Amino acid sequence: MTIPSEMKALLLTGDGYTKTPSGSVLEAMEPYLEPGTITVPVPGPSQVLIKVSLASINPSDVAFIKGQYGQPRAKGQPAGFEGVGSVVATGGEPYATSLAGKRIAFATGVSNWGSWADYAVAEAAACIPLLDTVRDEDGAAMIVNPLTAIAMFEIVKEAGEKAFVMTAGASQLCKLIIGLAKEEGFRPIVTVRRDDQIALLKEMGAAHVLNEKAADFKATLREVMKAEQPRIFLDAVTGPLASVIFDAMPKRSRWIIYGRLDPDTTVIREPGQMIFQHKHIEGFWLSEWMRQFRDRRGPAILEAQKRFSDGRWSTDVTAVVPLTEAMARVPAALAMPNGKVFIKP
Amino acid sequence: MTIPSEMKALLLTGDGYTKTPSGSVLEAMEPYLEPGTITVPVPGPSQVLIKVSLASINPSDVAFIKGQYGQPRAKGQPAGFEGVGSVVATGGEPYATSLAGKRIAFATGVSNWGSWADYAVAEAAACIPLLDTVRDEDGAAMIVNPLTAIAMFEIVKEAGEKAFVMTAGASQLCKLIIGLAKEEGFRPIVTVRRDDQIALLKEMGAAHVLNEKAADFKATLREVMKAEQPRIFLDAVTGPLASVIFDAMPKRSRWIIYGRLDPDTTVIREPGQMIFQHKHIEGFWLSEWMRQFRDRRGPAILEAQKRFSDGRWSTDVTAVVPLTEAMARVPAALAMPNGKVFIKP
Repeated sequence: MTIPSEMKALLLTGDGYTKTPSGSVLEAMEPYLEPGTITVPVPGPSQVLIKVSLASINPSDVAFIKGQYGQPRAKGQPAGFEGVGSVVATGGEPYATSLAGKRIAFATGVSNWGSWADYAVAEAAACIPLLDTVRDEDGAAMIVNPLTAIAMFEIVKEAGEKAFVMTAGASQLCKLIIGLAKEEGFRPIVTVRRDDQIALLKEMGAAHVLNEKAADFKATLREVMKAEQPRIFLDAVTGPLASVIFDAMPKRSRWIIYGRLDPDTTVIREPGQMIFQHKHIEGFWLSEWMRQFRDRRGPAILEAQKRFSDGRWSTDVTAVVPLTEAMARVPAALAMPNGKVFIKP
Repeated sequence: MTIPSEMKALLLTGDGYTKTPSGSVLEAMEPYLEPGTITVPVPGPSQVLIKVSLASINPSDVAFIKGQYGQPRAKGQPAGFEGVGSVVATGGEPYATSLAGKRIAFATGVSNWGSWADYAVAEAAACIPLLDTVRDEDGAAMIVNPLTAIAMFEIVKEAGEKAFVMTAGASQLCKLIIGLAKEEGFRPIVTVRRDDQIALLKEMGAAHVLNEKAADFKATLREVMKAEQPRIFLDAVTGPLASVIFDAMPKRSRWIIYGRLDPDTTVIREPGQMIFQHKHIEGFWLSEWMRQFRDRRGPAILEAQKRFSDGRWSTDVTAVVPLTEAMARVPAALAMPNGKVFIKP
């Protein structure tokens, strides 16, 4: 395969971090990205060059391009943390070489060459050769959400209580976790913002689906917490919603923050609960989990592929937007509920 | 010794918890306590009856009588968590019997018969026979602060960094910890509210003493955090001060809340730090520590007695107030800085 010298990509317009955080909605692409044509990168010794088939858009991508994710932006580089594609060139290290020609899921991580482009660069260690039975749509969303789901559900299982709480219950990530929980008899308690999401999530396996906008939300929350006694709170939202939930949870509860969808102030309503009820507030970051638990990564990846192959997991597709139309169409597509948006080079 | 049938005591006027928390200042005794004469209690099988020589007043006592501590009040029972005295009657269990006639430091804990009275009841397991070399003033303040100091300094040592942060730096508790830290070459960074406390605390062993009221407090804080890289934050205050400190601390910092001197709202300024910087918020409660680490209690108690005997530790006495004058005089005595207030039956 001939590799061209130039490629199209969506390039970051900002450097480092923003000084004015603005929440999780992508109101428009223009403040953060511009379409451009740049030189196709050359992979380093431990890296591979991938011809991108499909790239996914995660909440972490939106946070990153806005400069409010935990890694700094590099102006002029392509965005996109994740995708699926074929390895068309490799660095010299053995594991990189072994991937030549393979169809892989990949995460771009610190390579600075994102997936919202014709070609991307990833560390070979962050590439997963795919089974033929895995669809492109699932492969492009194989790493960030599935591994986060498996890793966070491990925390739930290790904590030992059947019930646990999640905000942003209708997200792709929460749906994956609800699937895992149902199989093992766990009882997810999830919050949503629309009544029309309730029936679907209950059918998938949520024990309780609470609409945070409902007038009786706080009363229902207290009842459910009392009845179910959940100890783990997987939180993508923070702000007042998360504060109220954590406050209502029983002794020895752990508030595990992994997202920041609400930019509002996050309050510890009763600091005395940390003292007398042994409550904890902590965080979850997939990169940190992968560093800490290297031995769990392989089994988790295999598990994810099996689940996508046999249909136990499936990625809901809202839209597949061509790279050339992404600037105009992505924000509206992301605003639609219940599914994932992809960019196709 | 003849035990009278009745005794004087300061009795709780409230039940359970308050609905209107009001901070750590004891503006007056009357809303919370009334002087009374009640029947001298009879110790249960595992308990002892103590003729109180001296009772201490801790910040946790003030929080408790106001109904804002982690244990409910029982109306009509004597207040006071701690004291020193002689065992004048015992229950039938062997360890209780073995304490007969001894001079002990005691914690009343869940017995509901507090130390602000002529006689108190304590679990025998919560009594410490005292060496003759320990003064009454030290014995009456032998359990709550000294064991908390030793237990929390263990957390600092286990964390491995030499520098650590404490709010309410001029408290008796912090002074004990500063003493421990100095001996082992650790570097306490403490906050105070008055410039006249700075020199004394530096002399005792604090590496940095920051006045939270100073105009340049935030700038100095950031400089010190950058230079010292402390990872443990022992916090008695919460509210805006603690939020600012935790926000300025480096990756992998732990905010350990053990008091709530400021009733203002406590904010997590950057929830993303929990995710990307692996920061934690947790609590410390001596009762919980004693449950979890039963084997560490004995050595900690012996260590405390040695330190008070040889003068490495010493309790600063602000005032010793007779029980009969306590209602009128205690609030003013507590408002004075730098020492402890005792009640003498």
